[in-house]
Amino acid sequence: MSKVSLRGKKLPPSPIRKLKPYDDAAVASGKTVYHLNIGQPDIETPPEMLETLKNIGTKVVGYGPSQGIPQYQDALIRYYARHDIPLERDNIIVTTGGSEAITMAFTVCMDPGDEVLIPEPFYTNYNGFAIAAGVNVVPVTTKIEDDWQMPPIGEIEKLITEKTKAILICNPNNPTGKVYSKEELAQIVDLAIKKDLIIIADEVYREFIFEGEKHTSFMNFENARDRVIVVDSISKRFSSCGARIGAFLSYNCDIMKAALAYGQARLCPPTIDQIMAVPSADLGDDYYNEVVGEYKNRRDVVVETLKEMEGVEYKVPNGAFYIVIKLPVENAEDFVIWLLQDFHIDNETVMLAPAEGFYSTPGLGRDEVRIAFVLNTEKTKKAMNILKKGLETYMNKP
Amino acid sequence: MSKVSLRGKKLPPSPIRKLKPYDDAAVASGKTVYHLNIGQPDIETPPEMLETLKNIGTKVVGYGPSQGIPQYQDALIRYYARHDIPLERDNIIVTTGGSEAITMAFTVCMDPGDEVLIPEPFYTNYNGFAIAAGVNVVPVTTKIEDDWQMPPIGEIEKLITEKTKAILICNPNNPTGKVYSKEELAQIVDLAIKKDLIIIADEVYREFIFEGEKHTSFMNFENARDRVIVVDSISKRFSSCGARIGAFLSYNCDIMKAALAYGQARLCPPTIDQIMAVPSADLGDDYYNEVVGEYKNRRDVVVETLKEMEGVEYKVPNGAFYIVIKLPVENAEDFVIWLLQDFHIDNETVMLAPAEGFYSTPGLGRDEVRIAFVLNTEKTKKAMNILKKGLETYMNKP
Repeated sequence: MSKVSLRGKKLPPSPIRKLKPYDDAAVASGKTVYHLNIGQPDIETPPEMLETLKNIGTKVVGYGPSQGIPQYQDALIRYYARHDIPLERDNIIVTTGGSEAITMAFTVCMDPGDEVLIPEPFYTNYNGFAIAAGVNVVPVTTKIEDDWQMPPIGEIEKLITEKTKAILICNPNNPTGKVYSKEELAQIVDLAIKKDLIIIADEVYREFIFEGEKHTSFMNFENARDRVIVVDSISKRFSSCGARIGAFLSYNCDIMKAALAYGQARLCPPTIDQIMAVPSADLGDDYYNEVVGEYKNRRDVVVETLKEMEGVEYKVPNGAFYIVIKLPVENAEDFVIWLLQDFHIDNETVMLAPAEGFYSTPGLGRDEVRIAFVLNTEKTKKAMNILKKGLETYMNKP
Repeated sequence: MSKVSLRGKKLPPSPIRKLKPYDDAAVASGKTVYHLNIGQPDIETPPEMLETLKNIGTKVVGYGPSQGIPQYQDALIRYYARHDIPLERDNIIVTTGGSEAITMAFTVCMDPGDEVLIPEPFYTNYNGFAIAAGVNVVPVTTKIEDDWQMPPIGEIEKLITEKTKAILICNPNNPTGKVYSKEELAQIVDLAIKKDLIIIADEVYREFIFEGEKHTSFMNFENARDRVIVVDSISKRFSSCGARIGAFLSYNCDIMKAALAYGQARLCPPTIDQIMAVPSADLGDDYYNEVVGEYKNRRDVVVETLKEMEGVEYKVPNGAFYIVIKLPVENAEDFVIWLLQDFHIDNETVMLAPAEGFYSTPGLGRDEVRIAFVLNTEKTKKAMNILKKGLETYMNKP
């Protein structure tokens, strides 16, 4: 007997991390690699947060409540109030990163064999969480030529079976940078009501919108209050990816009760990280203006170079800090590996994430890559220039 | 359609935490409650660990590697070497508490519907992890009158079906305090080889043994190297329950590969908590002698009072920091609630964990409670005296 379960064998190695050996080899050979492949921002964690660590005020790092420490729950209540999302403590379970919140949602709302609809391309780790939970992802394909809009609602409805229990929407979207309009969201709500589905809303990039109206949360739809779960995280918002603090939010008491039972089994989210997160909730407009402004500048630098690149398709993203572009190559992964192995300008090169791993439908995304705007504008400019020159060289190879 | 899955409905609210409302009411009424119900030690977190927080040396709290930061992996290699468990980085995945390590083991080695054997009474949260993972717990009943020894190996073998994939052994045992002998462990190894089972070894109380030979790890059995997973945690060992740092260890490459894929999906364990954990690995005999000595003193205080209590059955525990005792009552939960609601000595009372929730077989443990030695000897003495007087009063009620 194999010692690994069927689902254990199906768990995909991270497509974002799987080219690491080529990356390591490039670095070992003395190259500088600009990493636009992974969503690890270089923005500094707010000093207010780091400052808390100097005086955590306890001699015993003990368990906190399973739903999170009260002072952080209350901080979250203040934070969401500013987004017109009125919450009480009972609507909140603090989680170990957004990751745990998604697993929690899959587990308390779906049984093994159930299906969840997700617009693709999607955040690759949804796949891993789904396989671990024994649930099946049914992709709703979105396309670059449609500006990554969702297909007509009737097309989505056709994908719904008896096994479909939920639809997961990431807005603003990782990896496309798409911000869905209020009207698109309303259509999803109507469909969810009609077909009695849960809406799992991944809103971790809520503030990261560059132009036009501010974010609409699924929590804002009065008619969907009993069927929405918001999964959230401080990782990107406060550049605290390593703190592993997220949240699971819902107005549905039955869902919260089951989620709390799940939460009790794993005891509690990290105590110190929660203490560190408390001041983040009270950061004001100055903080967001600066950070979102910085990401917008980076996006503009990326788009500026893309404009000059022949044969590259893209849509200007309005949110998050990602873009998916279509390259005039057959296999984007080969190109990414070639950039690491065989190309450099002044001993510098760039790393991107091949987009195939962001799709669930086999064969899609093979000529696409995701770029993350996680380096400052100067580095981004250099990295994009390497990409541009690299692509020219690659296309003119014999 | 209900919004909660079948497994979501089955998730048990923590039996350790479910009496919290009675506890809260007792405290609100002005009573002091001695909490012997939960494994939250009052021992101080080693200052070397807390000291690291004052200078974590980074301005960006970024993702670490999915398998853990190298400096903590290396610290663990040093720690396990002292227990004659030679490891390399590839044998280690740092987890978010022991909790995640158990879920990881259930997921990568078992599919929905598979079975895991676990000696009962067992750590109640195994149940929650199993239900979330869709796997079924098959209890191997152990009894106070047998000094919590496992039944003859032939009896255990009879419980194995086609669905049985693993056996989970917690040694030293929570909740019984039992330390299994090397011979008992060898029999489990032989059975696992014969029936091709994985052994999941929960060894978080490794050092907490009061008399006789030191701990034997399942990792020490050469003939089981391909089928052992050790789950571990710093929570109790270094009084750092809120730090949520554990470990998943195995010599089996296939298991480690699947576990790493699982680990990559959830990105990484908390970075700051790992930095904090690094110095723990180099704490020496002085630290352990003091801490284990303290727990032994507490055990002795508990046993001293138990000796004087009429109609109470118990076996002196040799490890961990728990004991399960049988009371001359019909329903231990009623008694625990009565202690909180209706009894006090000088306005002080005691809280225990009813043991029924530690059993999987319905009806077992109804007259048993678990006591955790988590308060200093003075408080433990007071608490045990309250228990003794409380039981006398309860038995003589009209």
